[in-house]
Amino acid sequence: MTQLLRVQNFSIASDGVAAGVDQSFESPFGFDHRDLFAWSGATASWPNRTEPGGTRGLDDYFTRDFTHNIGAEIMGRNKFGFQRGPWVDHEWQGWWGDEPPFHTPVFVLTHHERPSITLSDTTFHFVDGSPAEVLSKAKQAALGKDVRLGGGVTTIREFLDADLVDTMHIAVAPVEIGSGLKLWESPDELEDRFEHEVVPSPSGVAHHLFWRK
Amino acid sequence: MTQLLRVQNFSIASDGVAAGVDQSFESPFGFDHRDLFAWSGATASWPNRTEPGGTRGLDDYFTRDFTHNIGAEIMGRNKFGFQRGPWVDHEWQGWWGDEPPFHTPVFVLTHHERPSITLSDTTFHFVDGSPAEVLSKAKQAALGKDVRLGGGVTTIREFLDADLVDTMHIAVAPVEIGSGLKLWESPDELEDRFEHEVVPSPSGVAHHLFWRK
Repeated sequence: MTQLLRVQNFSIASDGVAAGVDQSFESPFGFDHRDLFAWSGATASWPNRTEPGGTRGLDDYFTRDFTHNIGAEIMGRNKFGFQRGPWVDHEWQGWWGDEPPFHTPVFVLTHHERPSITLSDTTFHFVDGSPAEVLSKAKQAALGKDVRLGGGVTTIREFLDADLVDTMHIAVAPVEIGSGLKLWESPDELEDRFEHEVVPSPSGVAHHLFWRK
Repeated sequence: MTQLLRVQNFSIASDGVAAGVDQSFESPFGFDHRDLFAWSGATASWPNRTEPGGTRGLDDYFTRDFTHNIGAEIMGRNKFGFQRGPWVDHEWQGWWGDEPPFHTPVFVLTHHERPSITLSDTTFHFVDGSPAEVLSKAKQAALGKDVRLGGGVTTIREFLDADLVDTMHIAVAPVEIGSGLKLWESPDELEDRFEHEVVPSPSGVAHHLFWRK
């Protein structure tokens, strides 16, 4: 069974922006990011749901597929936390709280290594290396399952540039951010290497699905 | 966690027909049914795939969701086999071969009970009783997971009439059969009780998704 590197449920604005220019400790995205994830938050399978209910239509399929056959995640350092440069505060264990939503080993890309952290059933490893080297570690840790490429934008673009991404699901929300880090100018940029389907959801997002030609 | 009764990947023709009038030992559907399932057979996740490849777009999500969080299946007798009336041939163990694609307990509705059959990791139980009684047995066997309502048409309609179905995914293929058992005259019939989304796939099928209001 081939192990895939999959981007899953990565949400961006209609202008391609997925992260703002003003990231801070208080604002992981640098803007009010709730609009980007509203499509998933409305579903019955949303893991942070505290009340019953929620939709069980198309968006619910994507939401519950997030963990399906995933054995590890790779993320950029800014998805773990806001600190830059050498880690000065080992007490602070990232943005994800005591019950991170990953439930697998997570490989955090950084030039500044630090000891691994286990929070509930998620273990964060801090690794330096090329995309191919980190992917090799993550595949080994995934024990035969696929690896999720968690983002952010810079990380996804690095792995796309290295031609290591097998499948990609990008949810394009009907909002504009204006300035910030863009995943793309246009999704057509990827069509030389990927098959590309666009599935409009009744919720207003458009699900863009890519897989290698 | 609520246990749901889910219809999954049930494929019908655009005129609502899902089973022909001429079912026989040689022809489980009573017509050439391959067109109904072509959408799923083209995907990378199709379990009977013998060669690499296959699409990884929208249809692949539905195909791989078939087993997701399913702990048991309920099916009508005609989905198990062609025999009618009392079981005269216990040697014949149904249409599904030595490796049935269910991988869970399966409850076969019949007025003629017979001993259970285990084939690989699927066990077929033959049960008489009302839809509610059979569902109760299946939920117990599912150990907290959901129950799939596998069909055929008559079985799905019985459980809809008893108001026991929680979610339903019907794939409507772009073919007409003409005569046979129909799931519906129009999907609108269900909108008094169910939310209803229609998602057209680039493959030509329309995925109809229903969940309780």
